[in-house]
Amino acid sequence: MSNNNRYLRNSWYVAALSSELGAEQFLVRTIMDVPVLLYRKEDDSPVALHDRCPHRFAPLHLGSRDGDEVVCKYHGLKFNCEGQCTENPHGNGHIPKAAKVRSYPLLEKFGFIWIWMGEKASDPALLQDFSELENGPDNGVGYTYMRMTANYKLILDNVMDLSHVDHVHGDAINTRGQLSPKSPKVESVGDAVVTSCEWEQTPPMLIFADFLPKPESEARHYFKVTWTPPTNLQLSVGATQSESGFDELVGQYDVHLITPESPNSTHYFFASRRNYNEEDPEYNAQKIQAMHDAFEHEDGPIIKAVHDMMGDNEFFDLNPVLTSNDVAAVRMRKKLESLIDEDSGVLASD
Amino acid sequence: MSNNNRYLRNSWYVAALSSELGAEQFLVRTIMDVPVLLYRKEDDSPVALHDRCPHRFAPLHLGSRDGDEVVCKYHGLKFNCEGQCTENPHGNGHIPKAAKVRSYPLLEKFGFIWIWMGEKASDPALLQDFSELENGPDNGVGYTYMRMTANYKLILDNVMDLSHVDHVHGDAINTRGQLSPKSPKVESVGDAVVTSCEWEQTPPMLIFADFLPKPESEARHYFKVTWTPPTNLQLSVGATQSESGFDELVGQYDVHLITPESPNSTHYFFASRRNYNEEDPEYNAQKIQAMHDAFEHEDGPIIKAVHDMMGDNEFFDLNPVLTSNDVAAVRMRKKLESLIDEDSGVLASD
Amino acid sequence: MSNNNRYLRNSWYVAALSSELGAEQFLVRTIMDVPVLLYRKEDDSPVALHDRCPHRFAPLHLGSRDGDEVVCKYHGLKFNCEGQCTENPHGNGHIPKAAKVRSYPLLEKFGFIWIWMGEKASDPALLQDFSELENGPDNGVGYTYMRMTANYKLILDNVMDLSHVDHVHGDAINTRGQLSPKSPKVESVGDAVVTSCEWEQTPPMLIFADFLPKPESEARHYFKVTWTPPTNLQLSVGATQSESGFDELVGQYDVHLITPESPNSTHYFFASRRNYNEEDPEYNAQKIQAMHDAFEHEDGPIIKAVHDMMGDNEFFDLNPVLTSNDVAAVRMRKKLESLIDEDSGVLASD
Repeated sequence: MSNNNRYLRNSWYVAALSSELGAEQFLVRTIMDVPVLLYRKEDDSPVALHDRCPHRFAPLHLGSRDGDEVVCKYHGLKFNCEGQCTENPHGNGHIPKAAKVRSYPLLEKFGFIWIWMGEKASDPALLQDFSELENGPDNGVGYTYMRMTANYKLILDNVMDLSHVDHVHGDAINTRGQLSPKSPKVESVGDAVVTSCEWEQTPPMLIFADFLPKPESEARHYFKVTWTPPTNLQLSVGATQSESGFDELVGQYDVHLITPESPNSTHYFFASRRNYNEEDPEYNAQKIQAMHDAFEHEDGPIIKAVHDMMGDNEFFDLNPVLTSNDVAAVRMRKKLESLIDEDSGVLASD
Repeated sequence: MSNNNRYLRNSWYVAALSSELGAEQFLVRTIMDVPVLLYRKEDDSPVALHDRCPHRFAPLHLGSRDGDEVVCKYHGLKFNCEGQCTENPHGNGHIPKAAKVRSYPLLEKFGFIWIWMGEKASDPALLQDFSELENGPDNGVGYTYMRMTANYKLILDNVMDLSHVDHVHGDAINTRGQLSPKSPKVESVGDAVVTSCEWEQTPPMLIFADFLPKPESEARHYFKVTWTPPTNLQLSVGATQSESGFDELVGQYDVHLITPESPNSTHYFFASRRNYNEEDPEYNAQKIQAMHDAFEHEDGPIIKAVHDMMGDNEFFDLNPVLTSNDVAAVRMRKKLESLIDEDSGVLASD
Repeated sequence: MSNNNRYLRNSWYVAALSSELGAEQFLVRTIMDVPVLLYRKEDDSPVALHDRCPHRFAPLHLGSRDGDEVVCKYHGLKFNCEGQCTENPHGNGHIPKAAKVRSYPLLEKFGFIWIWMGEKASDPALLQDFSELENGPDNGVGYTYMRMTANYKLILDNVMDLSHVDHVHGDAINTRGQLSPKSPKVESVGDAVVTSCEWEQTPPMLIFADFLPKPESEARHYFKVTWTPPTNLQLSVGATQSESGFDELVGQYDVHLITPESPNSTHYFFASRRNYNEEDPEYNAQKIQAMHDAFEHEDGPIIKAVHDMMGDNEFFDLNPVLTSNDVAAVRMRKKLESLIDEDSGVLASD
């Protein structure tokens, strides 16, 4: 039996990059099986409505804007940003009490638009802090979006177990076989699961080598991945040739923010800030494009192949043969499952 | 739960336009989930057979004609117009008693070929009268066919609630906002549901304006839609600037005849007779093409979007917020459901 | 209810033509719903592994060869030809006991690679003898492969009932209506079902005519089809104008070897040895291509149409009207069903 359609609903998820949502524009994105209409008000703040007219279920995105409101294409009912019907052009204009669409709480922070799809009251305090992305020059950070045709948990697994890099990726992000023999450390920190590792390699990872003092010589490397519920991954990775160690490193602070679209597809939001060559717009553009391409053309196909191979089966039901490199991903999956149980349980007893 | 596959089976449905069925030609059309083979005998009368050989279930339309009979492509069994096997080319030629395909009663009237798919005996007296289509010059009437990928009840709804016209259609069929404030009258007449309305607008509907005395001035308009079971819609619509009112009008008599193909797709047959410019073949061709295009490019996409949005859900299960303009469609749906219950019940107790 | 996914598992099936499997090459073929990876060892002997890494279920065919072993693309686990994991590049390199993929016994004989998918021990003695294919010059035999989108039993039916040839095929394999009036003989020989027939026709079947003494004159013909479980069909067919009868004939020895891919698709392996014009490579190539084309363009479409028409229904549940030409196919189906029952029963009590 599949549990691919189980989601931790009462949580913040990324709905869009801030840059994806222009003025005067509708963006439709299905999130945890619900079609959501996203747009910006005239004051630029974002709005999210269930993309379904409550009258006859036409998608609202087929309609049009009237100031900050949305007019349904089929029969002209108008809805405000809270989803309340404000105009019924028919008959005496009476607006039935139930004439509203669900609106979803949003937060716009760290370059992302975050959405709360759950039934419980949203809590801005639950939004995780990724302000590190904003601590630096504009050309030291890049954002991108990919859609992947695989279950979201397989994408989480992929980052929680970086032992795949030497096998899946090309030269640029390659540890020359030096990461494999290591057993990454795995810790639970509250609800979070943290995995980290240090290793030496020669030459250094090619994404860093040119920015190190001796591009051909050995460098000490580390990564640290922090998963926080529901589906936020923060990866720090760097290299140093300094005697003072990682206090003085060439590295990057990445976030992989994973939003389930459906049991079989996932929105993948990614941002990366680096601490080198931060003023070069051309390098910055190439860098984020290279990472986008690696996800899309290297990770993407194998994750999709795994998803297809698993069919509708639940991961553990297929009796995976687990190895030392799976500890972090397995702990993350088990924690996520227990949080989903808890979250659904609360709803059930409400 | 979906009830999209519930049909009022013991009824006449349009299977084809008369003009669609040529001599020597096979037409295959799936009707209420059953593939039907249609063709004309040498005397031009139409035949309908289940498009499935009873031997090994090859589609008969892959075969060939032998006079008025049909020869299966796979093993050469031959069937007559009543579906009886008349030749078994194998062994001693014995024809098993069960070797027949179901044939369906047909009527050819008003420019359509009507089919009876139900288990009860067909009754020509139950065919509704649309002879009005034939009361006039050849160039005053047009026929067309569209296939729509939506459930048939959504297409019925669309005509039973004309309040959509100002929102969905372009300039040609637009009431300039004058229809909306009206509450159409809704009546039950036997099993039929009738909805009608009158309004003024300036300029008149553009399809009529040029044929009225003062194309720029206000005209009084009306429409009247009559739904009769199972899925027949007759729409009369017109405009007048005469003091004697609708006795002297420019208008048209339309039929929308809706045949379920499957739960998710529908055959849409349409004919329109007008009482103006009835001798102009070029205008006549343009007129029916314009209506065809409006259904296909304006109604079609939004009805399909509604269908897709509803998924497998039953309309009322989704708790639609109903407004005054829904009264006719809702009454029609409820009547249709009760007739289907009755029709299936009769079958069950047989 | 469909029983299209019932297979006689403990049996030899053809997985590939010998010629399909080159050196250094992966071939993936789904057999009875299981994706199988096929390749040749350096000594040329074939290997079959479940195409799914037991770790995280990546398809092994995305990986690479390391000598005779296979390296998974995702995390680099290596497997030998018995499916045992031989290298885990992670952590301390410990190989979990369960780290193996299923390997399938193979036999390479008669120009085919045969696979045993069942749970019971494979038995080479159960492989049927088709050595006749190899008794003659290289240019007197041809092999080909087709994929058909229909259930495998419909393909067996098609050969077990050759009464279709005059209806489905063109001039080349046509009995001029002389086969139809015959009632083929049907015998059970152990588990096998044998059907055979003799007839005269003028001119002889065109595939034979030019090689007979009098190409325009009557010839005596025969066919004999032997089905042996699970899905092997051997068809002998020939023509003679000799007074000593079939001792002196122009004919061919064909095998149709049918491997279920899924309930809805089938691998069709075919080979044909003839006893005429056996030294002509150009004729040989044309001959096998012509037979391939007949299967693909003449049998294939009608078998697929039958499959689609049947939907998920079991053949007998649709109450087919059976005629004298169905005796062999029906007996074969019933025998196959009872063997499947037996085969599954043994498994259940193990």
